[in-house]
Amino acid sequence: MSHVHNFSAGPCILPQEVLEQASQAVKSWDDHGLSLVEMSHRSKAFVAAMEECRALTKELLGLPNRFDVLYLQGGASLAFLTSAMNFLPEGGQAAYADTGTWSAKSIKEAKHVGRVNVITSSKEDNYNHIPDVGNVDADNAYLHITTNNTIFGTQYAQMPKSNVPLVADMSSDILSRTFDPEPFALIYGGVQKNMGPAGAVMYAVDRERLGQAGRSIPSYLDFDVQLGKDSMFNTPPVFSVYTTLLTLRWLKAQGGVAAIQARNEAKSALLYGEIDRNPLFEGHAKEGSRSHMNATFRLLDDSHAAAFDSAWNQAHINGLKGHRSVGGYRASMYNALPLESVQVLVDVMAEFERNHG
Amino acid sequence: MSHVHNFSAGPCILPQEVLEQASQAVKSWDDHGLSLVEMSHRSKAFVAAMEECRALTKELLGLPNRFDVLYLQGGASLAFLTSAMNFLPEGGQAAYADTGTWSAKSIKEAKHVGRVNVITSSKEDNYNHIPDVGNVDADNAYLHITTNNTIFGTQYAQMPKSNVPLVADMSSDILSRTFDPEPFALIYGGVQKNMGPAGAVMYAVDRERLGQAGRSIPSYLDFDVQLGKDSMFNTPPVFSVYTTLLTLRWLKAQGGVAAIQARNEAKSALLYGEIDRNPLFEGHAKEGSRSHMNATFRLLDDSHAAAFDSAWNQAHINGLKGHRSVGGYRASMYNALPLESVQVLVDVMAEFERNHG
Repeated sequence: MSHVHNFSAGPCILPQEVLEQASQAVKSWDDHGLSLVEMSHRSKAFVAAMEECRALTKELLGLPNRFDVLYLQGGASLAFLTSAMNFLPEGGQAAYADTGTWSAKSIKEAKHVGRVNVITSSKEDNYNHIPDVGNVDADNAYLHITTNNTIFGTQYAQMPKSNVPLVADMSSDILSRTFDPEPFALIYGGVQKNMGPAGAVMYAVDRERLGQAGRSIPSYLDFDVQLGKDSMFNTPPVFSVYTTLLTLRWLKAQGGVAAIQARNEAKSALLYGEIDRNPLFEGHAKEGSRSHMNATFRLLDDSHAAAFDSAWNQAHINGLKGHRSVGGYRASMYNALPLESVQVLVDVMAEFERNHG
Repeated sequence: MSHVHNFSAGPCILPQEVLEQASQAVKSWDDHGLSLVEMSHRSKAFVAAMEECRALTKELLGLPNRFDVLYLQGGASLAFLTSAMNFLPEGGQAAYADTGTWSAKSIKEAKHVGRVNVITSSKEDNYNHIPDVGNVDADNAYLHITTNNTIFGTQYAQMPKSNVPLVADMSSDILSRTFDPEPFALIYGGVQKNMGPAGAVMYAVDRERLGQAGRSIPSYLDFDVQLGKDSMFNTPPVFSVYTTLLTLRWLKAQGGVAAIQARNEAKSALLYGEIDRNPLFEGHAKEGSRSHMNATFRLLDDSHAAAFDSAWNQAHINGLKGHRSVGGYRASMYNALPLESVQVLVDVMAEFERNHG
């Protein structure tokens, strides 16, 4: 276990053994006699790594055959545009649920492509809950959701029931819990939380729904083009893809998504238990919408802030400062964060109560 | 010096000390107690690295103040679109020189944005030379060039004189030679040749020419947005940017671009000398258009191919196979390739002549 307890919101903690393997590959990759990053992406070895990464993603997510996986560049911020370019048909419209900063950004970019209906929003409550999605008119090509809202610490307890296909930004909770992929047309996420180091975005695309947008799409943004080139239309982000593969292998060895979900629930239960018990703190996200990945909370008395900051810093806790939109604190508990780190934070909070309560 | 002589076209050889430093940073970055890739991109340490990388790029390229540097994702393939989105005005047109596969791709993507005039092309000669650019009508917003053509092994001996601003894809020869930046509005390049590991694209943008495209640009593709966020509109490709910084520091320590240019010219002179001298081989690119980065050549008698392939493989030469559009061989001699590796190849060619001539 690392000396530092890394609660960063992303880029964030990765499994120690993954970091060691990735570090070794940058120096000299397996028995290839070269660094991972100075070999051609068309080499047999890297093509095999890319294919394993794509296949293992599909396997761990439990996706049906109609899905194909891509690892591209540009992060979720470019995916906001790409998803609409491919799935929002010319002259058509799509429904969006506004549950936080990243939802709002996805809406902004989709408006460059076509008509966007924001069917629900919790903005007026500073996004402290996941609002009810309700019924979606069938003339919407899809419903876009952000499954976990990193900044506000909210998460869909269940995926919404929808009569139109779902398009989901899962950047900050992908591979943290199981879900039924049946209603989805597209799942995407920047890899830099549960999957790997920043620099790649994963798309799981229902290829049977492609080719219906009725527009000419620039090549890099066209899923048909990218799938036709097996995610190697151009030079891929080699290091990010390979390290994602290492993380996926680690996740599989941990027992897969169901096993990690049980651990994630234990971690978040421990922390939310303390937030609710400890009279010095309160949570930001409402019960029923609380994220298992990012717990947002604050001190009831702001004059305690300097002392609390000093306490968690002394415990070698890193990355606990909340986003400026919410203030207070945010504890990000991604897959690779051990329960022990959460226990250290809870102990700091409990001791802080004894000293300042 | 590495046991393997790495002539890969890209991703390609990087300086050994850079690979060692990058490997160490993936395990544990300086005294931060964490891996480079598990720290927030908003941390003071990474923000400082990004700023140093941007500033050092500008310094090494000798760019005037009107330029700002960005490190984004998507490679040159997305840059083909981005460059046109920002600099080809709505209702306007731009001139393109077609000097190879990547030029042709830049033309294809720009056509998604506006009117493209292909003012010259060497396609009919399988791109074996850089055609004369001639005069460019002043109603073109810019002239787009590909300064080095990796696949065909051609390179502009001098930048073309043009009465409209230049936009250049320098992916495969950036930082390999000095040039006058005065005529340029935009310089871009995937980093995975002379700059660092795949996963980032560098843009040097003349900010005084922005804001004149007259269109609404999606955020990720909008240089104004990206510059306003100091190249951190979203999570950057942390590993690629940091390793690029390490490579730039290495280049500066080597004496900068002028010093590396002298070495690159010595390497290419050695190899072209042998190609011209050895009666078993001929070059693809015409004299006057030959690239200092990628030398393309072939056996005059194809029946020798198996024996020659065996000879260079035995000499631990890697990545010499030519691109399928040209056939034969391609020796890529990027900044980090030592002269000694070129000597090994030349020795193999000379010995091959003694055995098969």
